[in-house]
Amino acid sequence: MEKARQARDSVGGYPARRTALDSVRARISFKSHPSIPANSEGLMRKFFHPKSLTIVGVSASPGNLGRNIYHNMMTFGYRGPLYLVSPKGGEYKGNHIYTSIEELPETPELAVVLTPAATVPGLVTACGEKGIKNLVIESGGFTELDRSKADLEKQILEAAQRYGIRFIGPNCIGVICTQSGVAAPFPVLARPAPPGGVSIVAQSGGVGLTYLHNCAQAGIGISKFASVGNKLNINEQDLLAYLIEDPETKVILLYLESVVAGREIADLIASSPKPVVVHKSNISPQSNAIAQSHTAALANDDSVVEAALKQAGAIRAHTVTECLDILRGLTLPRAKGKRLVVISRSGGHAVVAADAVSRRGLELPPLPREFLDKVKKHVRASVIRLQNPLDLGDLFDFKVNITILEEALALKTTDAVVVIHGYRGKAEAEDSRNFIKKAGELCQKYNKPVGLCLLVEPEELAKVKEITTLPLFAAAEEAVNALARCRLPDPLPQLELPPQAETPDWGRIRRTLGAAQPDGNLELPESLILAASAGIPVAPFMVALNPDEAGFIARELGFPVVIKAVGISHKTEHKGVALNLRTQEEVVEAASLMFDNLGLKRMVVMSQIPGDTEVIVGCKNDPSFGPIALLGLGGVTAEALKDVSLGLAPVSPGQAGYMMDSLKGSVLLKGFRGKPAINRPALAHVVCRVSELAARLPEVAELDLNPVITGPGGSVAVDARVVVKKWN
Amino acid sequence: MEKARQARDSVGGYPARRTALDSVRARISFKSHPSIPANSEGLMRKFFHPKSLTIVGVSASPGNLGRNIYHNMMTFGYRGPLYLVSPKGGEYKGNHIYTSIEELPETPELAVVLTPAATVPGLVTACGEKGIKNLVIESGGFTELDRSKADLEKQILEAAQRYGIRFIGPNCIGVICTQSGVAAPFPVLARPAPPGGVSIVAQSGGVGLTYLHNCAQAGIGISKFASVGNKLNINEQDLLAYLIEDPETKVILLYLESVVAGREIADLIASSPKPVVVHKSNISPQSNAIAQSHTAALANDDSVVEAALKQAGAIRAHTVTECLDILRGLTLPRAKGKRLVVISRSGGHAVVAADAVSRRGLELPPLPREFLDKVKKHVRASVIRLQNPLDLGDLFDFKVNITILEEALALKTTDAVVVIHGYRGKAEAEDSRNFIKKAGELCQKYNKPVGLCLLVEPEELAKVKEITTLPLFAAAEEAVNALARCRLPDPLPQLELPPQAETPDWGRIRRTLGAAQPDGNLELPESLILAASAGIPVAPFMVALNPDEAGFIARELGFPVVIKAVGISHKTEHKGVALNLRTQEEVVEAASLMFDNLGLKRMVVMSQIPGDTEVIVGCKNDPSFGPIALLGLGGVTAEALKDVSLGLAPVSPGQAGYMMDSLKGSVLLKGFRGKPAINRPALAHVVCRVSELAARLPEVAELDLNPVITGPGGSVAVDARVVVKKWN
Repeated sequence: MEKARQARDSVGGYPARRTALDSVRARISFKSHPSIPANSEGLMRKFFHPKSLTIVGVSASPGNLGRNIYHNMMTFGYRGPLYLVSPKGGEYKGNHIYTSIEELPETPELAVVLTPAATVPGLVTACGEKGIKNLVIESGGFTELDRSKADLEKQILEAAQRYGIRFIGPNCIGVICTQSGVAAPFPVLARPAPPGGVSIVAQSGGVGLTYLHNCAQAGIGISKFASVGNKLNINEQDLLAYLIEDPETKVILLYLESVVAGREIADLIASSPKPVVVHKSNISPQSNAIAQSHTAALANDDSVVEAALKQAGAIRAHTVTECLDILRGLTLPRAKGKRLVVISRSGGHAVVAADAVSRRGLELPPLPREFLDKVKKHVRASVIRLQNPLDLGDLFDFKVNITILEEALALKTTDAVVVIHGYRGKAEAEDSRNFIKKAGELCQKYNKPVGLCLLVEPEELAKVKEITTLPLFAAAEEAVNALARCRLPDPLPQLELPPQAETPDWGRIRRTLGAAQPDGNLELPESLILAASAGIPVAPFMVALNPDEAGFIARELGFPVVIKAVGISHKTEHKGVALNLRTQEEVVEAASLMFDNLGLKRMVVMSQIPGDTEVIVGCKNDPSFGPIALLGLGGVTAEALKDVSLGLAPVSPGQAGYMMDSLKGSVLLKGFRGKPAINRPALAHVVCRVSELAARLPEVAELDLNPVITGPGGSVAVDARVVVKKWN
Repeated sequence: MEKARQARDSVGGYPARRTALDSVRARISFKSHPSIPANSEGLMRKFFHPKSLTIVGVSASPGNLGRNIYHNMMTFGYRGPLYLVSPKGGEYKGNHIYTSIEELPETPELAVVLTPAATVPGLVTACGEKGIKNLVIESGGFTELDRSKADLEKQILEAAQRYGIRFIGPNCIGVICTQSGVAAPFPVLARPAPPGGVSIVAQSGGVGLTYLHNCAQAGIGISKFASVGNKLNINEQDLLAYLIEDPETKVILLYLESVVAGREIADLIASSPKPVVVHKSNISPQSNAIAQSHTAALANDDSVVEAALKQAGAIRAHTVTECLDILRGLTLPRAKGKRLVVISRSGGHAVVAADAVSRRGLELPPLPREFLDKVKKHVRASVIRLQNPLDLGDLFDFKVNITILEEALALKTTDAVVVIHGYRGKAEAEDSRNFIKKAGELCQKYNKPVGLCLLVEPEELAKVKEITTLPLFAAAEEAVNALARCRLPDPLPQLELPPQAETPDWGRIRRTLGAAQPDGNLELPESLILAASAGIPVAPFMVALNPDEAGFIARELGFPVVIKAVGISHKTEHKGVALNLRTQEEVVEAASLMFDNLGLKRMVVMSQIPGDTEVIVGCKNDPSFGPIALLGLGGVTAEALKDVSLGLAPVSPGQAGYMMDSLKGSVLLKGFRGKPAINRPALAHVVCRVSELAARLPEVAELDLNPVITGPGGSVAVDARVVVKKWN
């Protein structure tokens, strides 16, 4: 192993080396090599449960990192045959070191490779010759360091393809499986991770290991871990697909710095019966520079990431701390609704918890009379505040606490309970521990989460950890936040499209797209025709070629009308729009002015639609997530405040309803200041139709209906802008 | 001590009993007893540094809580004479128990009282007779339990007044001073809090003690602690005033569930050279119920609290966890600006840190050429990413890390540094600890904060805590957040009022107020006159008594004009406004319609002001914080999105500028979509004048100029609504 490489690798806590250049992956990923077998549970399983394995690159020389891999395997208790390989041969810890892969006495199911970059293609071939089908290539020094190493990566891919090999890496810290004892990272792992149900896939080895360590400290059990590295062959989608099927995995955590195959990931998550937590970082210009220089992680549009993950049902974490609270929360049953009961020994902490309830959009339903009657049987009514939060401050018999907790969990109106319990002296320790133990049992019995905020000395905390599987929160608001983030998503609003809603005329749509200008833009009349062809109500309009025509058309349409210049961008700013024209003379005069001043060839004369709630409906094509539908409030203020909802196209009527409701200014659609509520199905119809168009026709790069005038009577588009992708 | 009381008190971790009924305080606070001496450093000092003290209520009977106070005093190392008093007499731990206060051999400087409520007035008198001037009354069972106990509280107050006694409580857990060893809480304190500079004033004993314990665990040193209880005499303002002067206190933490004397607290905080952290909870309808039933804590308008604390320069925490991160951050020098350098061993954690930088509005300035040249001297350029965040992943000589950190701190463009460092094996522990020690020294040397995120095993963390005073953050984003929250506030924008700006005519304003209707409303013409008298530009208008007059006036003013009904609320909804009238005929016609349909007596005819950026400027009187100025974007969308800035009136021009900049839609005022930026001084003038009016005339309960039309040319009010408080 060359010296510079050793120096780089001797970094201890977490690897300096990072994950893949996604751009490289895009160029030479296995997707373009159909001869490599597709993902299958059986094949992927060998990365985590190999019956035998070899570590290639373990020598007795000081500073050798392969030895750390060997030690980690021992620490985690891997018991299958384990062969060491290094060209120098020799012996390590009583194990013979084979000088080549060929020499191995059997064909191991997995090879872990940590050798200089230049040697890797040859080793892949050697593995292929030996019949090894699964490789973890941890070696660094590829495109992540130097773009000129793309050729080396290509050689690896080609060798793998030749022998039907699947591999993770290169430039990764490998895989862990607590069930099999496989622990391939080259950084030293001081102790085995506690076995459990959380599996981690990380685009950064450093952050991935931090999650591993933090979970261990929080008592969260781990099933599997994989660092994807340059993901030349196996990528996060492959691992995600495997983990969704893996019976040992109960919760999946993805740490991503960029999302390349966003739609694929969203589809996988949506299909997962298990909770998938996604910590997608690199959301800002500040992080893009560093992320790009390390992993060529391209910046995603974070509002798209956010919407897509939400729509797919993922739980998104924005920080390491929040993610850990979510993982804690997922060790509990997931709340099925937002109705929380808070039981506290301290009024002050109950206030703090109630603040968190409000911030997180949860509810504290009043406690029913029967419940309070039961509680009253156990306590003097005068010392307990019979409300939610329930303050048990004056209660000192913890058996009663158990009863009250059970009664609270048994209530139909309870989706989750937060218990705030504290003690400092020894006097209450025994009874408290018993209460906590029972709380854990009740949580399982009623299949509802109990978020326990425990306020005790660190020594006592350590003792409590041994007697309960309940996650322990150090602050009331953390317990509330965790339950809130982990609760099952609300069902989408019930919404059906109007029965008389028009359906798209795909042939006419395609004909209209053919009218695009050389720059890809459709002009206004064609844009409006496209919208109408998609089944979207458009204000009645006709095209005029001169002022007099405009006057005749206006009379035909009925007054008032609006006239709009065609072929002018930023119409409003260039005085290419005249509103509220009430007579034929006014129309002709305004049209003359516009034809003369702007040198127009055509103009749109349109019926002016009354009503003043304006929205924007549109779509765009995200490079990672594909077609995206957009709904926003209209007007310059809403634009300045960036009040927009997104959805993966095509969206369902319910999803369109959710998009309406998640606008910050959604109250404007629901009836505000005497204005009546809008017709939701009619607006949903517009959103659905636009999204369908985007989903079916990827050549529609952008479509904006701005504004759509919406109200109780329906929704009508009065302006449209379409950009068609050019295929040259 | 009665049994129920004991039962209540035997709650261990934190007291069930809570702080004052603020409403009671308002009725019978010491403010209405001017004979009680005003707050002074010398007097308050004796609560924390008494040369001698007595604990009244210590007996040898089991379950006696006074004994806990004695033990806590011993634990914290109180060394002055300490006398125990209980009517039963006897002995405890070798100390004679006196049967009465009278019997004490000297006059102690402080008495801590924990006896049944009914005995307290007599004990206060006995203390007075003995010459004791400072009391901490921890006994509960007053108005917090039962409103009928107000009389008992009155007796205490009167006795105190008679003897010039000042007291904390009742219904509190008392005071702590780590310097003197006074530790009066009756819950058991397992170990002394580490001495240091943080002093805590808490409206909830439970949350206060949690802060005390959490600080101890985080290694944050404590100076003083006070739980205010029912604050019949000494309240949070008194303690705040004292702690601002107290040389041992470096940082003040207030935990409040309600703010009664908001303006007073804001003034005190604004005058403090020390950082004041305020965790104000009870921000939601969900928490109001529980807070109110416990402490009669009235709900504050949280947007006012938020604005006032910000304006006063307080650092507001919203959760216990956030507050602790802020306290950690305040053990460091405070950043003087927003320019951060991130130095990380892990690219992934650097990405996470950069995300936090963006979320917190900080900056990562590019590192200057000279700096990079210096860095390059120490490292091979190929293994280090020369950017900010600086990824030292490939660096293994930690002496170089020290040099780089020092160079980064020395840069003029650096306000703060975040260091992310991790190691797991023993190999790097020694060098790492040395680096951390040096980092602490460099932090002091350059008087700039170094936020250290340390990723190590718990055992190593414990060791590192012993060798450094640097706070240790467990996640990169927590370090960034703490530095961001603790940085010194930005100076207010430079803004001066236009030199020709008119000043208020106070006499005319007072005359106009006299025209208020019986319901307190000023009608539109008088409201506009009031605004104009305050020096605010108002669109030219005159009052018409019939349609013909309206026509004449319009001709006089020049077209277009707008006419507005007088004496009609919700003018727009009731068709009491007609816009854009361009001829005398149009005016007469529209005015006739309005006079007839609405049965008007008067109407306002006003020049129509062009320009389409509308804002709302107003003021209101907050029950806690007094006169508040308000600035918001106009229009229904902005209203629905609640985009409003507040300021304590009167506001300075700079504060008015800050209010403009802190609107979510502030971009609309700065030039947006081709619209030019508004004239900031002119709008500041309107805000300042309105705020002056609110500050000087408390009888103006509400004033709204909605809208004010603003643009590059200036700001003009076109509508006004004034409500005058009735004095009957």
